[in-house]
Amino acid sequence: MTLNSSQIRVIAFDADDTLWRNEDIFIHAQDEFINLLLPYHDESYVRSHLGEVQINNLEHFGYGIKGFTLSMIETAIELTEGRITGNEIHEIIQLAKCMLASPVELLPNVESLLSQLKGQFRLLVITKGDLLDQESKLARSGIADYFDAIEIVSDKTSAAYQQILQRHKISAEHFLMVGNSLKSDILPVLDLGAQALHVPYHTTWDHEKVADETLLHYPQLGTLSDVAQVTDWLNLSTTMDKKAV
Amino acid sequence: MTLNSSQIRVIAFDADDTLWRNEDIFIHAQDEFINLLLPYHDESYVRSHLGEVQINNLEHFGYGIKGFTLSMIETAIELTEGRITGNEIHEIIQLAKCMLASPVELLPNVESLLSQLKGQFRLLVITKGDLLDQESKLARSGIADYFDAIEIVSDKTSAAYQQILQRHKISAEHFLMVGNSLKSDILPVLDLGAQALHVPYHTTWDHEKVADETLLHYPQLGTLSDVAQVTDWLNLSTTMDKKAV
Repeated sequence: MTLNSSQIRVIAFDADDTLWRNEDIFIHAQDEFINLLLPYHDESYVRSHLGEVQINNLEHFGYGIKGFTLSMIETAIELTEGRITGNEIHEIIQLAKCMLASPVELLPNVESLLSQLKGQFRLLVITKGDLLDQESKLARSGIADYFDAIEIVSDKTSAAYQQILQRHKISAEHFLMVGNSLKSDILPVLDLGAQALHVPYHTTWDHEKVADETLLHYPQLGTLSDVAQVTDWLNLSTTMDKKAV
Repeated sequence: MTLNSSQIRVIAFDADDTLWRNEDIFIHAQDEFINLLLPYHDESYVRSHLGEVQINNLEHFGYGIKGFTLSMIETAIELTEGRITGNEIHEIIQLAKCMLASPVELLPNVESLLSQLKGQFRLLVITKGDLLDQESKLARSGIADYFDAIEIVSDKTSAAYQQILQRHKISAEHFLMVGNSLKSDILPVLDLGAQALHVPYHTTWDHEKVADETLLHYPQLGTLSDVAQVTDWLNLSTTMDKKAV
């Protein structure tokens, strides 16, 4: 399955782990959390219980650091049968504040890619998570000005993408979504008849994984860092010619 | 100061404590929280310390129940010097889940008012807080279909309103904001040269209060529940005539 690049007018990027590093921040926090609970339980037990609590809490708290933190606290209490101390829970809250204040580390050559695409396509960011945190990361990223619009949604379902397309008067055949999560960035977009380009990140949260990934067919690129390769994929020169007509 | 209703084309409503009850849910949770800490400190001390922690945490966590919950947990740990038990903190997390699941109680006659305005004006909701929670409340409210657009923002600054007006191509002179908070719904909107109608709620979070409120001049209405009075204020018949011309 390849891209039909001549149709594309609008390119939307996922943010976390597509434009900048994010999962690493969660993994680091999770490692610190596990260290905190090692006196009570072994690593794999803590890890799997935290995963379960997180998934169960998604319907209450949604995606993002605040919900993750409440899930860590809940896990800590459950796994210690309430014996966890206030001071240990305080460390978890401090972890959250560190996560929220983490520097935004752009992935290699993201800015150079955006500067190539700017003017040739309408560029969007479509991301999910906590509103304030995502806005703050975008402001700190230094790349906000490349984008014509920023959309922060509570979940990346086909319906959520459909609403965005409608709001911006984009027809599906002109739309390309680029992101690292098959579940959130690729499959719901393909469902709408739009195009999607999967750019895997080196690590994926289990919840974002899709069963039988190998059976799926979708355009995939190893990295966005090779700007020439991406613009080639997007057939940028052809698009430019076409626009010049 | 009165409204210049003949200009108005778009009416935006705040949601919490304007369309439905909200502060009551926080007050109830706060009372439960204070009961939890009464064995450690007296009520006024707990209340004022929680207020301080909440304000200090706004920059990290933003508005909404998740941030409020993390602030309650932090306050509990600080005020007990870490002696609060895991089980007591678990009660705080349960409080959060109860808050998030609270039924959405529309204020009196809100739906009747919206049905009068629908078709005469473009109607918006502009609200701040946690994305998922606000979306969920709107879905459960049963009134989502009255609105042409829903805007959930991390903070209600003049800049945030300005962006919304630009995005929806609304000129300031055609825009009326209706809400209960002078700080969030009225002053930033008046700053843009748009109009705003203050409809106080019976209780206001201290952080949303404005110094010297009595010195300010702005259109105010005691309640939205008297639909005839509101449409009279909005000079609805005149507007209808004008539109019919």
